[in-house]
Amino acid sequence: MSKVGIVMGSDSDLPVMKKAAGILEEFGVDYEMTIISAHREPDVFFDYARTAVDKGFKVIIAGAGMAAHLPGMCAAIFPLPVIGIPMHTKSLGGKDSLYSIVQMPSGIPVATVAIDGAVNAALLAVKMLAISDEGLLAKLQAYQEKMKTDVANKDAKLQELGYEAYLQAKS
Amino acid sequence: MSKVGIVMGSDSDLPVMKKAAGILEEFGVDYEMTIISAHREPDVFFDYARTAVDKGFKVIIAGAGMAAHLPGMCAAIFPLPVIGIPMHTKSLGGKDSLYSIVQMPSGIPVATVAIDGAVNAALLAVKMLAISDEGLLAKLQAYQEKMKTDVANKDAKLQELGYEAYLQAKS
Amino acid sequence: MSKVGIVMGSDSDLPVMKKAAGILEEFGVDYEMTIISAHREPDVFFDYARTAVDKGFKVIIAGAGMAAHLPGMCAAIFPLPVIGIPMHTKSLGGKDSLYSIVQMPSGIPVATVAIDGAVNAALLAVKMLAISDEGLLAKLQAYQEKMKTDVANKDAKLQELGYEAYLQAKS
Amino acid sequence: MSKVGIVMGSDSDLPVMKKAAGILEEFGVDYEMTIISAHREPDVFFDYARTAVDKGFKVIIAGAGMAAHLPGMCAAIFPLPVIGIPMHTKSLGGKDSLYSIVQMPSGIPVATVAIDGAVNAALLAVKMLAISDEGLLAKLQAYQEKMKTDVANKDAKLQELGYEAYLQAKS
Amino acid sequence: MSKVGIVMGSDSDLPVMKKAAGILEEFGVDYEMTIISAHREPDVFFDYARTAVDKGFKVIIAGAGMAAHLPGMCAAIFPLPVIGIPMHTKSLGGKDSLYSIVQMPSGIPVATVAIDGAVNAALLAVKMLAISDEGLLAKLQAYQEKMKTDVANKDAKLQELGYEAYLQAKS
Amino acid sequence: MSKVGIVMGSDSDLPVMKKAAGILEEFGVDYEMTIISAHREPDVFFDYARTAVDKGFKVIIAGAGMAAHLPGMCAAIFPLPVIGIPMHTKSLGGKDSLYSIVQMPSGIPVATVAIDGAVNAALLAVKMLAISDEGLLAKLQAYQEKMKTDVANKDAKLQELGYEAYLQAKS
Amino acid sequence: MSKVGIVMGSDSDLPVMKKAAGILEEFGVDYEMTIISAHREPDVFFDYARTAVDKGFKVIIAGAGMAAHLPGMCAAIFPLPVIGIPMHTKSLGGKDSLYSIVQMPSGIPVATVAIDGAVNAALLAVKMLAISDEGLLAKLQAYQEKMKTDVANKDAKLQELGYEAYLQAKS
Amino acid sequence: MSKVGIVMGSDSDLPVMKKAAGILEEFGVDYEMTIISAHREPDVFFDYARTAVDKGFKVIIAGAGMAAHLPGMCAAIFPLPVIGIPMHTKSLGGKDSLYSIVQMPSGIPVATVAIDGAVNAALLAVKMLAISDEGLLAKLQAYQEKMKTDVANKDAKLQELGYEAYLQAKS
Repeated sequence: MSKVGIVMGSDSDLPVMKKAAGILEEFGVDYEMTIISAHREPDVFFDYARTAVDKGFKVIIAGAGMAAHLPGMCAAIFPLPVIGIPMHTKSLGGKDSLYSIVQMPSGIPVATVAIDGAVNAALLAVKMLAISDEGLLAKLQAYQEKMKTDVANKDAKLQELGYEAYLQAKS
Repeated sequence: MSKVGIVMGSDSDLPVMKKAAGILEEFGVDYEMTIISAHREPDVFFDYARTAVDKGFKVIIAGAGMAAHLPGMCAAIFPLPVIGIPMHTKSLGGKDSLYSIVQMPSGIPVATVAIDGAVNAALLAVKMLAISDEGLLAKLQAYQEKMKTDVANKDAKLQELGYEAYLQAKS
Repeated sequence: MSKVGIVMGSDSDLPVMKKAAGILEEFGVDYEMTIISAHREPDVFFDYARTAVDKGFKVIIAGAGMAAHLPGMCAAIFPLPVIGIPMHTKSLGGKDSLYSIVQMPSGIPVATVAIDGAVNAALLAVKMLAISDEGLLAKLQAYQEKMKTDVANKDAKLQELGYEAYLQAKS
Repeated sequence: MSKVGIVMGSDSDLPVMKKAAGILEEFGVDYEMTIISAHREPDVFFDYARTAVDKGFKVIIAGAGMAAHLPGMCAAIFPLPVIGIPMHTKSLGGKDSLYSIVQMPSGIPVATVAIDGAVNAALLAVKMLAISDEGLLAKLQAYQEKMKTDVANKDAKLQELGYEAYLQAKS
Repeated sequence: MSKVGIVMGSDSDLPVMKKAAGILEEFGVDYEMTIISAHREPDVFFDYARTAVDKGFKVIIAGAGMAAHLPGMCAAIFPLPVIGIPMHTKSLGGKDSLYSIVQMPSGIPVATVAIDGAVNAALLAVKMLAISDEGLLAKLQAYQEKMKTDVANKDAKLQELGYEAYLQAKS
Repeated sequence: MSKVGIVMGSDSDLPVMKKAAGILEEFGVDYEMTIISAHREPDVFFDYARTAVDKGFKVIIAGAGMAAHLPGMCAAIFPLPVIGIPMHTKSLGGKDSLYSIVQMPSGIPVATVAIDGAVNAALLAVKMLAISDEGLLAKLQAYQEKMKTDVANKDAKLQELGYEAYLQAKS
Repeated sequence: MSKVGIVMGSDSDLPVMKKAAGILEEFGVDYEMTIISAHREPDVFFDYARTAVDKGFKVIIAGAGMAAHLPGMCAAIFPLPVIGIPMHTKSLGGKDSLYSIVQMPSGIPVATVAIDGAVNAALLAVKMLAISDEGLLAKLQAYQEKMKTDVANKDAKLQELGYEAYLQAKS
Repeated sequence: MSKVGIVMGSDSDLPVMKKAAGILEEFGVDYEMTIISAHREPDVFFDYARTAVDKGFKVIIAGAGMAAHLPGMCAAIFPLPVIGIPMHTKSLGGKDSLYSIVQMPSGIPVATVAIDGAVNAALLAVKMLAISDEGLLAKLQAYQEKMKTDVANKDAKLQELGYEAYLQAKS
């Protein structure tokens, strides 16, 4: 049974949303990824949200752009945590998506991450699951260590090469 | 049978939304005003939107603030025009409401008016009904004349009094 | 006699505005498309707006960018609904166009859609006409069904292929 | 014959616009102040703008708020300079007025001043007239001197009193 | 042992943050509320964040305003979920707080709620705990029912009284 | 003697500013174009501004980007009209330039045009000169006629070709 | 000889700017506070900036609002550090002041602090002087300790009283 | 011993940050450039900031993007001046970085420069050091002269070539 539902309103969001899937795979968390539109198929969407607990979902990650209603509408129905990812948009840079997701009225929270922040959305889902899963907590701590080592390695390389050679090596 | 549905997510929107009701009364258009929350009672909301055509609604006017999903979710279900009124908000001035209502994705339009623009929302509903109702069209033209006369009267008074006396008379 | 007037202030708006025409054609709604500038030819514009009812227009769709006055000035003269499309702009992303169109003063509404939202503008015009045209209402419901099927098909394909193959198939 | 036309769309703009009148009076420049609405009485407005040259206007100062079209529509008709004053607005602080006035398309300039900047609008009108009026130029130079003296006097007082006594004396 | 840590950088945030405490009390979730400043006492803060898991915290709720670093710095150290509440600010309305909290770089998520959204922050914490606590899940469902009833009651009252009497009864 | 001074702070502004020069040439107005930086050579700048009246300048057109001080500092010294052109900027789209130019304090107006609006800046300068130059006024009226004809021709072509052929012919 | 110059363009900035003076007094740093306007008395301003090194100023703190040019113009002339304080403004909240101060072009830096951030401006000046003044560095470290103690005391009181009594005690 | 620490949170900031290094080299100021992340390696970061005075740092230049906490966290620990460079971001243009850096609470100043303003950050550091280093002050004055000559040379070339040839020569 999948623990995390990943939903997006359009397949144009997939290049961003797949990064959430990648993180969940890395942490060994089962997920189900679905394209579902609260606007274009409201009844399908309602079924999805209403049955999500029964399907075993503990968290829903919802990505949406512009007047982004999908995360908030999930949160209106699904009683467990919903994480919202505001998509970057051409004209307003994603500020429209961000406001439509984060500014939820009292009673219906959406855990909002940065614009296009699919990696963080998935990490947040893992952290939520880790509240009651020591194995995941250990993996998170290892992930934190790895991030630390990555930065330290980059800095070591910078100290060794100097910034000009570093930038040449990168490009 | 009411021709216009007026919906709002919270009774805190009522001081703005009542202006829409006032205009409809002035034009003799039957309406039904309802407090309904897409977030707090999604199933009640779905019923409302699904049965709206059968209830005789030709237009829905929906007001909402912050991450304002009510107008867009109405438009996802109700096949006739939905007019959205973004509510003023303390922190973002209503820009959050505006973006959440106007930036709808292709396929699901919401006819958006100005922040707190309830008078215009109702006038827009009347104009939509006037497409097939010559009596309303005539009333709209009379309304236009009245607005014109009002401005002309104000200017006449300004010419007569001068700006200082005009401002004293106003205060 | 055309039922919808499509106007734009400049031929640079045509690549966006043609999408409105495409939708109206799809729904079998007659329209007349005109390039007309409220700023550069105010008298031509006034004639256009004043005679629009007599020409049989039931709705005007007006697209404009930057300090976008065309939709609002149409609404000042034409007594039936005016739909405004704010054009994307290089420097302010279309926020200038949006504010110039949506923030109309009381008495003169413009039904505003998303930045570059020409598809939605045309759908909104069709919905307005469908208030008194059951045939159009049926077409709108079919359109809604088609949108629903499109999303469902995309999701079915995603379930079949997985996200990596899906994205490769798309590109 | 008045040299400057001061127009505003609504008498709610008068408390700001009267400051422009005050400056013109101080400089001895004849003006005519009118409440006229491009939206509510477009034909009256058109007459006003078309006859403005014949009335002897050399400059028009136009104040407007929200989707502020009055200055731009004046500039579309009146061939001499139009100065636009964006009014402060409750929800967007006047950013809507500012964008609607300053972001004019090529060919139709509006000389825009700060939000609620009626004093500067009038000074700008005087500067335009001073191009061909040495008496006004001399008055402008005297005005500049007076501003200089005012600041210098304030600083002298601050040096004398210290900031605490200065603030007490002010309040 | 407290399950939720509530932290804020300044006691000026307390009138907002106490609402989070109120919700946790309502759900019977133990919490510990602390004033701690990442900027003014970085070492105290580090100790707090480093020992949070050992103290039994499963979630941290952090409120902060302006260049709001407290939630993000908590998330840099505490491996379980951090919820960030952007505080309203006088000059930028809380947009500064919002961006400083929500726009976290990859690897360090903060679950962000609306500006001043302390009620939602606490509900989100409860939802996270409810992933592994069926009692809390049941309470959340009851809370959802109560919100629904509240809206329904308001609407019933509106239908009974009409909007004018409703507004009078409220004021 | 040149009647218009065109100044810019950096040669990176030249591709925009040259359009102002082009318009002045079209209207036969003598101008002098200078690269001068209020920030990098404040004394050179001061000399420029102080001697501008003696050099015969009736108007200064100043373009600047980011924290754009050049137009405002010109207006602090030169007693006749200063027109400011806010330059588009990479990060803030020119909103920084716009605010730095248009939001001048009382007493020191800058006639601000749109972001990158060099054509309008020059037209505004011509309009200012036309206050006392009937030949220029006639040229402005001819320019207005030409703009009108251009739009009318485009529309005629659109009516003839239809939008698809029109767009193909354009590309 | 004063080490720090505090300048402001208008005495309306004094209620904010006096906080900078207060901090300098607390640290025992001599300062000279002046009202001087780059716009209204450019020659006085130039003299001030040019003679600032000779007067012994090591740092200038400049506060300004709207199109805030004073800090940047100081930085164009005075070769040592200039600290800019953007003033809060009614219409744009100080965003205009902030952009006009912080977005300086390459070559002319202004060390910008928060909107109305006069305390931080003065602390920054002290830190700059402390680079070569061990006494000041010690005072800064003591100030840091005091801030730490203040927060710790508030937290201790909160732990003792609980949040409700704390808030009552505060009000 | 290096006098200036240059830190950045990620090597993606290096193409901007290297410009700060270039300026320090040009002025002969020793610096140490480090990649260090307050978020990904908070303990490493803390060590860095705590030992910075002992390492001889007089100034820290910190660049960061999005929810940019690095400069503010440096300022929380390091008692001497911290200069913050907000990085340009794809979605919000760097406004997120700017607000996260400049809007620091009272007590913890960060000297903020323009978005991507690494040159100015380094110049500001040099100016701070020049407070007690006459050699650096002389170099700054020479740098100011060079900037002046550069602009003067560009203007001379413009006068010689005219704008069309100038632009061709540049491209």
